[in-house]
Amino acid sequence: MSRESDFIAALARLATHPAARGLADDAAVLPPPAADLVLTHDMLVEGVHFLATDPPQDVARKLVAVNLSDLAAKGATPIGALMGYGLGADPAWDRAFLDGLEQALARFATPLLGGDTVAMPAGTPRAIGLTAIGTSPCAPARSGAKPGDRLWVTGPIGDAGLGLRIARGDRPGPDVLRDAYRRPEPRLAEGRALAPHVHAMADISDGLLIDAARMAAASGLAVAIDLAAIPLSPEAVAFAGDDRAARLAAATAGDDYQLLFAAAEDATLPPLPGLAPIGRFAAGSGLSLGDGAEVVPLPARLGYEHGAS
Amino acid sequence: MSRESDFIAALARLATHPAARGLADDAAVLPPPAADLVLTHDMLVEGVHFLATDPPQDVARKLVAVNLSDLAAKGATPIGALMGYGLGADPAWDRAFLDGLEQALARFATPLLGGDTVAMPAGTPRAIGLTAIGTSPCAPARSGAKPGDRLWVTGPIGDAGLGLRIARGDRPGPDVLRDAYRRPEPRLAEGRALAPHVHAMADISDGLLIDAARMAAASGLAVAIDLAAIPLSPEAVAFAGDDRAARLAAATAGDDYQLLFAAAEDATLPPLPGLAPIGRFAAGSGLSLGDGAEVVPLPARLGYEHGAS
Repeated sequence: MSRESDFIAALARLATHPAARGLADDAAVLPPPAADLVLTHDMLVEGVHFLATDPPQDVARKLVAVNLSDLAAKGATPIGALMGYGLGADPAWDRAFLDGLEQALARFATPLLGGDTVAMPAGTPRAIGLTAIGTSPCAPARSGAKPGDRLWVTGPIGDAGLGLRIARGDRPGPDVLRDAYRRPEPRLAEGRALAPHVHAMADISDGLLIDAARMAAASGLAVAIDLAAIPLSPEAVAFAGDDRAARLAAATAGDDYQLLFAAAEDATLPPLPGLAPIGRFAAGSGLSLGDGAEVVPLPARLGYEHGAS
Repeated sequence: MSRESDFIAALARLATHPAARGLADDAAVLPPPAADLVLTHDMLVEGVHFLATDPPQDVARKLVAVNLSDLAAKGATPIGALMGYGLGADPAWDRAFLDGLEQALARFATPLLGGDTVAMPAGTPRAIGLTAIGTSPCAPARSGAKPGDRLWVTGPIGDAGLGLRIARGDRPGPDVLRDAYRRPEPRLAEGRALAPHVHAMADISDGLLIDAARMAAASGLAVAIDLAAIPLSPEAVAFAGDDRAARLAAATAGDDYQLLFAAAEDATLPPLPGLAPIGRFAAGSGLSLGDGAEVVPLPARLGYEHGAS
C-alpha cells in the first residue's frame, strides 16, 4: 500500500454519509436540499495560515472552522464538506490531521462527502482546501446594511491575535487565548438565530476593521466604530490591557471568527450572550473610528489582506 | 495593489453569476436545485498532473475538464464551480491561467461561484483545486453493474497517453493527440444522454483497466475486457500502431476522460457516435483480459494510482 492509498483508506472511514458513496465514486450525490444552497471554499497554507509547529489536529480543526464560519455568516446549517489534501512527507502528521478532522467534522455535524488527495512533491509547504456546503432559509448578504443600522459583533474580539503571539512563542500566555487562535469556533447557532433579524452579516476572519469596512463598502455606506464598545475577553484584558493600543490591536487582528452584522435600530435580536453593538452605518462611504467621544485616526493596516474571495 | 488583489479583481470579473455575489461575500448562495446535487473536488498539481511547460490556459482547461468529467459520469449538468488557487511568482502565468479558465467555464456553461486565493511561499509547485457542483435527475453509481451487463466506452482510448509523450518531447507527433492530453473534453452531453439507460457509470481518468477494475470491485462482480474491441483513434493508430502492446498501452494510460459504463445486454442506448462495447460483467471478482479469443495476462500496472478519492 502506498502512503496515498493508506491515507485515502483512512479518509474513507470518515466518509460514512451515504452521499459520499464511500469515496469510491466520481462524485458525491445528495438529495435536493429544501432551502437555498450556501457554498464556500477556503484554503489553509503552512506558513501563511498556520505555523509548521501548530498541532496537526488543530490545523484540521481550523480548516473546518474557517469554512463553517462562512456558512454561519449566511445563517446556514452544514450538509457536508469536500477536502483537497496535499499529502506531505510525514505520515504521523497526516494521521494526526485526520484525527483532528474526524473530531471537528463530528463536532459540527458536517459529513465528509468527497475530495481529492495528492502526494505533493518533496519540500512543498502543506496546502489544504475545504469546500463546505450548507443550506439556509434566509442567507443575509454582506451588502445589505442600511443607513442607521447598528453594527454588532457576537462576542469578544482580539483573542486570536493574542493567541497567535503566544503560539509563536513571542510571549507566554494562557492556553485559552492560544486556543482562540488554533481552535476557532464557527458561530453556527448564532448565525442561524440571527439571520432572520439582520440586514447584513459576515464573519470576522481578516480583522474587525477590515471586515467592517468591506461590509460598509459592499452596502454602499459609511460605518463608524467605537473602539470603547468593542468587547474584549477578561483573559485578553489581563494579558494585554484594554487601552487604546490594545483595542486597536484587537480590532485589526484576524482569525476571531465572531460574526459581524448590521441590524435596524429597533430590530428584535435573539437573546444571545455576548452580543455587543459597536458602531453604526450612515449614508456616505468609508470607515471612521472613535473612542467614546474622541475621534481616532485610522491605523495604517485595518487587517489581513490575504485573499479570501 | 498587491499581486493577490489584482488576481482576485480579475477573478471577480469572471464571477458574473448572481449566486457568486461578486466574490464579495463569505459564500455563494444558490436557490435550491430541483434535482439531486452532484459534488466533486479534484486538484491539479504541477509536476504531478501537469507539466511546468504546459500552457497555463491548458492547465485551466484541464482543471475544469477533469472536474466536469466527474459530473458527466453522474449524468449531471454543471451549476457552478469554486476554485482554490495558489498564486505563484509569475503574474503572466496567472493571467494566462485566468484567460483559459474564463474560456473553459464559458464553454461548459459553468459559472464561477467563489473560492479562495492564497499567495504561496516562494518555490512552491502550483496546486489548484476546483469544486464543481451540478444537478442530475438520475445519477448512476459506479457500483451498479449487474452480472451479464456489457461494459462500454464512449470513444477512443489512449490518445491522451500518447499526447503526454508528445507534450513531454519524447517524440514529435500530431497536435490532436497532444491536445487530447492537454485539453480533455468532459463528456457532459454523453453522460446526460446515457445516465437513464445505464446501471453504472464512471469516467476514465486513471486508465481504462484500473477504472474498469474499480467499477467491477464496487459492483461486487468480475469484468472481462477484450483488448481487440477497445476503440483507438486513427491518429493513435498512425502514431503508435494497433498491435497488442499499443492496445495495452492505451488501456493503461490515464487522462482519457471518456465515460465507462455498464448497461444491460438489451438496453436501448442513445445513438451516440463512438460508443463501443469492450467487455462484460459476470459473477465473481477481478479483471481479466482477452485479445479476441486469446487470454492475455494482466499487465503489472493497470493505470495511475494517484488518489482521486
